Amino acid sequence: MVGLMQRASHFLDAGDRYEPDAPLAGHIIANLFMENSTRTRCSFTIATKRLGGDYIDLLGSTSSASKGETLVDTALNLEAMGAAGIVVRCSEENGPNEIAEQVGVPVINAGSGTTSHPTQALLDAVTLSRYFGTDDLSAQHIAIVGDIAHSRVARSNVIGLTKLGATVTLVGPEELLPEDLNCETSSDFDSVLSTVSATMMLRVQFERDAKVGEDYREKFGLTEARAKNYSGAILHPGPMNRGLEIDDEVANIESSPHNLILSQVTSGVATRMAILEHLIG
Amino acid sequence: MVGLMQRASHFLDAGDRYEPDAPLAGHIIANLFMENSTRTRCSFTIATKRLGGDYIDLLGSTSSASKGETLVDTALNLEAMGAAGIVVRCSEENGPNEIAEQVGVPVINAGSGTTSHPTQALLDAVTLSRYFGTDDLSAQHIAIVGDIAHSRVARSNVIGLTKLGATVTLVGPEELLPEDLNCETSSDFDSVLSTVSATMMLRVQFERDAKVGEDYREKFGLTEARAKNYSGAILHPGPMNRGLEIDDEVANIESSPHNLILSQVTSGVATRMAILEHLIG
Amino acid sequence: MVGLMQRASHFLDAGDRYEPDAPLAGHIIANLFMENSTRTRCSFTIATKRLGGDYIDLLGSTSSASKGETLVDTALNLEAMGAAGIVVRCSEENGPNEIAEQVGVPVINAGSGTTSHPTQALLDAVTLSRYFGTDDLSAQHIAIVGDIAHSRVARSNVIGLTKLGATVTLVGPEELLPEDLNCETSSDFDSVLSTVSATMMLRVQFERDAKVGEDYREKFGLTEARAKNYSGAILHPGPMNRGLEIDDEVANIESSPHNLILSQVTSGVATRMAILEHLIG
Repeated sequence: MVGLMQRASHFLDAGDRYEPDAPLAGHIIANLFMENSTRTRCSFTIATKRLGGDYIDLLGSTSSASKGETLVDTALNLEAMGAAGIVVRCSEENGPNEIAEQVGVPVINAGSGTTSHPTQALLDAVTLSRYFGTDDLSAQHIAIVGDIAHSRVARSNVIGLTKLGATVTLVGPEELLPEDLNCETSSDFDSVLSTVSATMMLRVQFERDAKVGEDYREKFGLTEARAKNYSGAILHPGPMNRGLEIDDEVANIESSPHNLILSQVTSGVATRMAILEHLIG
Repeated sequence: MVGLMQRASHFLDAGDRYEPDAPLAGHIIANLFMENSTRTRCSFTIATKRLGGDYIDLLGSTSSASKGETLVDTALNLEAMGAAGIVVRCSEENGPNEIAEQVGVPVINAGSGTTSHPTQALLDAVTLSRYFGTDDLSAQHIAIVGDIAHSRVARSNVIGLTKLGATVTLVGPEELLPEDLNCETSSDFDSVLSTVSATMMLRVQFERDAKVGEDYREKFGLTEARAKNYSGAILHPGPMNRGLEIDDEVANIESSPHNLILSQVTSGVATRMAILEHLIG
Repeated sequence: MVGLMQRASHFLDAGDRYEPDAPLAGHIIANLFMENSTRTRCSFTIATKRLGGDYIDLLGSTSSASKGETLVDTALNLEAMGAAGIVVRCSEENGPNEIAEQVGVPVINAGSGTTSHPTQALLDAVTLSRYFGTDDLSAQHIAIVGDIAHSRVARSNVIGLTKLGATVTLVGPEELLPEDLNCETSSDFDSVLSTVSATMMLRVQFERDAKVGEDYREKFGLTEARAKNYSGAILHPGPMNRGLEIDDEVANIESSPHNLILSQVTSGVATRMAILEHLIG
């Protein structure tokens, strides 16, 4: 994990340049996205191009999935066409693993079900390591706040951040706090916020039927008032519900040098470059 | 404006070739299209490729817009991923300006709301200048005909053509003729047609709830009968409703050397090459 | 036909490599797909990239087709933008021919209506020729089984396989067996299966309102029991309805060296490379 993080950091230092060695030249990466995605799909696509590779997109709404083909069969087809790797997002928790068992090329999980989004966790680790100036997060206490129940980002980040030594506390309304995560939990955002050095605000996922009360913003939102008394890092995996889990003024990048929301996005491309180079380059 | 037009004309003379200098090499252009589009999106894409650049597509139906993200946040994400420019089409009149205020890379308006489509106006100016053999259109009287009310093409062309010296008359049924355009208007197509050197037929935009009477074709269509007595240039920004605003026989490119409808399309690629090269190359 | 097959076979022997001569360099191929497709569109895209070309996608759901533009007008636009070739899939039987009559660049039929899918027939011919070790299929008897009525794959394969000398028998329930195909037909799969050296299982096309009885699998499926007594080649153009026209265990590629289902997919890319190189390179 730390090796990939350091390589991602190298790409970040290099800026938006194309890799002169083009380690993916002559390779085609298949993006198999069965769920809508802006940043993850574009992030992988740009990472692929920067490494000199080509890509093809298979999006849910335009693929043969509507004809009842299984995800694994679609992946086997992509491999048979010569794809050098498959980036997959799907609603099945175990989809990427099932594909990886059947195909002979690298498979990258770009988000599966409500449990797993490992490249997001890795890019968040890269972002926080650069912010804190070290890969060792054992001095850090980090809050993950909001709709934990529906969040694959939360679950993967608990694993990743814990591995780097951080203490993680999950914050949210009781009905959105699962108990299987082996983590401190709390419904008192203010008291947690006063003790952490980073807080990761989560999107309320209405598209997954999340239900929140009218006092959600007041209790669990990073409001302007709350942010005023807080000097740690602010993260959000996006897309944001401005005015709900995070106030407009807090979300705006210029609001604070501790707002890392767009840094996460930039780290995302570099992190996916590191992953693609490692697996396929 | 004339500088860009001359550069576009240079690209037209060069034919369908890729630019040997590849001024966009190593750059990724983001196409952020929240509304359906065939020709504009493809036109920008081909222009990008011809200049040696790469592109990513963010289309309304597959993006996180369906998760409630604001247009500006989506654009900020694209910039954070390293996009060198953003081409945007959206239903908000002011969308491209709002994005441009927030991001640090060039933003190109590829059609916004019902008011603005500046690259279409520029490509029409290129097409007409080449047809008339001069950038100075002060000797020309040009009709724009049909569903003016819903037409961003009309509004941008009034600005562009007037700037080049042309006289413009808007023609259509009264309920589709807005009065805020600072232009002659008329509902008598035949009498206007007898005085103009170019007529731009507009698509009736049923998808924007345009309503037209049963006599629309007869009164405002460029019918075969009407075209027989007319020897000026014929333009249409497409897509065409054949048999409504323009008859099949008139729409067919081989009908007349004055039919510039596909020339407009070819000029479109060259014009967007000039714009991309100017802003990003 | 045999020339293209041999060139496809050459590309298959060369593996997944990009063509060093890049015969499509500087050319843009337009994929005009009005119907959903996974493998055909990706196959053409990868073939284009391997030959050094670029592509643009025009998919039904995101194009101006929703604004009522005719297919031919869309194609004329793509030509006017400089597309070097147009790959078209559409529901109109005669769509590709109508386009080819109007545009001046090569048009490739990637599946039209329920009658025609010539590149699929060519890739199946390539697959079977390599399996049998010869282009001359006059010693072969081949079954095409299932939903013949809705299958453009069946119709194009009857033409292609017959041209190579093979005997073809169409098998299916009577209501799905059209009588205009100039071919032996049968509803007794078992007796046909005992005499053939290859069987091509067809997808039941529910999306085209195919209706099959509850005993369909038993009568016309390549079940595990049936496959046990059969040692010929097994083909399926995909996407498969596993458990209906073909059992899971039979569909799995590792089930048998005679299972050519993924070989067809690999042949598809090579075949489309041969076609694109021939027409455009």
